[in-house]
Amino acid sequence: MTGLPSWRDGAARRAIEEFLAAVTTGPDAVPVAERVAVFDNDGTLWSEKPMPTQLHYIVQGWQRAVRDDPALAARQPYKAVASGDLGWIADAVDKHYQGDDGDLKTLIGALVGQVVDVSVDEYAASVAEFFATALHPVRGVPYAQTVYQPMVELLRHLEAHGFTCYIISGGERDFMRPMTEGNYGIPPERVVGSAFGLSYDEDSATVHYTDALSFFDDGPEKPVRIWTRIGRRPIFAAGNSNGDIAMLDYAARGARPGLALLVHHDDDARGDAPYDKGVEQALDAAADHGYTVVSVRDDWATVFAS
Amino acid sequence: MTGLPSWRDGAARRAIEEFLAAVTTGPDAVPVAERVAVFDNDGTLWSEKPMPTQLHYIVQGWQRAVRDDPALAARQPYKAVASGDLGWIADAVDKHYQGDDGDLKTLIGALVGQVVDVSVDEYAASVAEFFATALHPVRGVPYAQTVYQPMVELLRHLEAHGFTCYIISGGERDFMRPMTEGNYGIPPERVVGSAFGLSYDEDSATVHYTDALSFFDDGPEKPVRIWTRIGRRPIFAAGNSNGDIAMLDYAARGARPGLALLVHHDDDARGDAPYDKGVEQALDAAADHGYTVVSVRDDWATVFAS
Repeated sequence: MTGLPSWRDGAARRAIEEFLAAVTTGPDAVPVAERVAVFDNDGTLWSEKPMPTQLHYIVQGWQRAVRDDPALAARQPYKAVASGDLGWIADAVDKHYQGDDGDLKTLIGALVGQVVDVSVDEYAASVAEFFATALHPVRGVPYAQTVYQPMVELLRHLEAHGFTCYIISGGERDFMRPMTEGNYGIPPERVVGSAFGLSYDEDSATVHYTDALSFFDDGPEKPVRIWTRIGRRPIFAAGNSNGDIAMLDYAARGARPGLALLVHHDDDARGDAPYDKGVEQALDAAADHGYTVVSVRDDWATVFAS
Repeated sequence: MTGLPSWRDGAARRAIEEFLAAVTTGPDAVPVAERVAVFDNDGTLWSEKPMPTQLHYIVQGWQRAVRDDPALAARQPYKAVASGDLGWIADAVDKHYQGDDGDLKTLIGALVGQVVDVSVDEYAASVAEFFATALHPVRGVPYAQTVYQPMVELLRHLEAHGFTCYIISGGERDFMRPMTEGNYGIPPERVVGSAFGLSYDEDSATVHYTDALSFFDDGPEKPVRIWTRIGRRPIFAAGNSNGDIAMLDYAARGARPGLALLVHHDDDARGDAPYDKGVEQALDAAADHGYTVVSVRDDWATVFAS
């Protein structure tokens, strides 16, 4: 599959095609090894509404924990999941973006508590089981059907032009790895995300999670992790939120001008309701730094494959 | 180039060929995507005697610092490089392996001082310049000529059998990246090593080093970094020292039995003098866990290409 059949002929699609022509032919052609493209995940490659998929998995785990130990329901975040009112969780994340990390720390503590001492293989099996059974809470379909078809076409189209594509997500890396090959054709070694701490157990020769979050791969941490993992500066980046600005800038503002795409969820009918929350600064940055804004309403003829 | 022409027909070469036959054909064949091989660098892919190459680069930098500010020569490690007696540096590393990190901390402080606030691109240019001009202090040849020819053949031979090869070194990652493609055919995105801290500068859209060492990629940290970067368990590993035991075990002791090679520098004539220091436990582990020991004297017909 090549080409971009789910993209309407408009400014975004033309910007992509012009960029690909410029970096693959003529005097400014970029060597194949240096054709690196990076993609955010939630809200860029698949739906992040009504909540990021990983939160669904986490809430399921907390619900199990409360069933095993009902006393947990007296404190957050277990109280929220026991009552069925997840507003506290959304508020904790909102507060983080307003500079108050108090509740986020409680959230992360309970998050890390789900994996501490679990081996990476056990966690991968648990995540794979989730993806095999969980349904999107609004659309009632497996999460694989919440993947944005135009973006999968874009991954393949870039690859057909010699690009190597990576996922650089604020989501947690090992939650993504069991599904990225199937959903996006991206193997685990090209998935970068937030990370739990890890330790190696010499007796069993296995790797386990520790009781700490190692880093949160968002905002300015994204270019840092891109360098750490790839050792090259991307010439293409796609994101959809304020947390992607640094990554979009890093691709757009190198010695070789790159293409930065900002997916804008302005569609009121097909899939996610329109939203600008958490995107305000990214839209400003798009105007200031020349990102190409992709309008879901106008630029995508099809949103989901099925 | 395929095959192993610089390897003599012996137990080590036969173990490699039998392993490759088992993982590529028959009922236990491993899918290509899961054929992951990991290699230590210093002492495994090239010479680490009389000192690791990076130490040469570091000493040059400290010598320049003393020239710029002679008062530095009053304290370590500048005192050592100003006097020309590098024994203090070797002792600091030896003490680390005996559990005393005091001098190592001084060493790392001066090491980080060389790169703090430097951009990753500036550092890469400085390292590339070093490799273009520096000569091995004993053999008087460019460091590219200290690469072990049998190991380069092994990299290509594994790739010819569908493997993807990575470098997992205690050496610092961004010091290796400018030379791994040329010396070993391994691109920067497949180089894992110890790491300086990094930060992203939003004004210039560039990544810089901070004033901290992020982690030391040795011993049990190697399997942790393998999982972080690759997300797969290797089925082949090659190392040469105690710091490689965890990595060799990780490859050897998975659900799929892997091959672990321990390069043993027992040759007294061609290149490095024989040495067992820092290898004692690895030789014991080889006996206990079935690593294949590669005798430089007996298994390699040629050591260096030139």
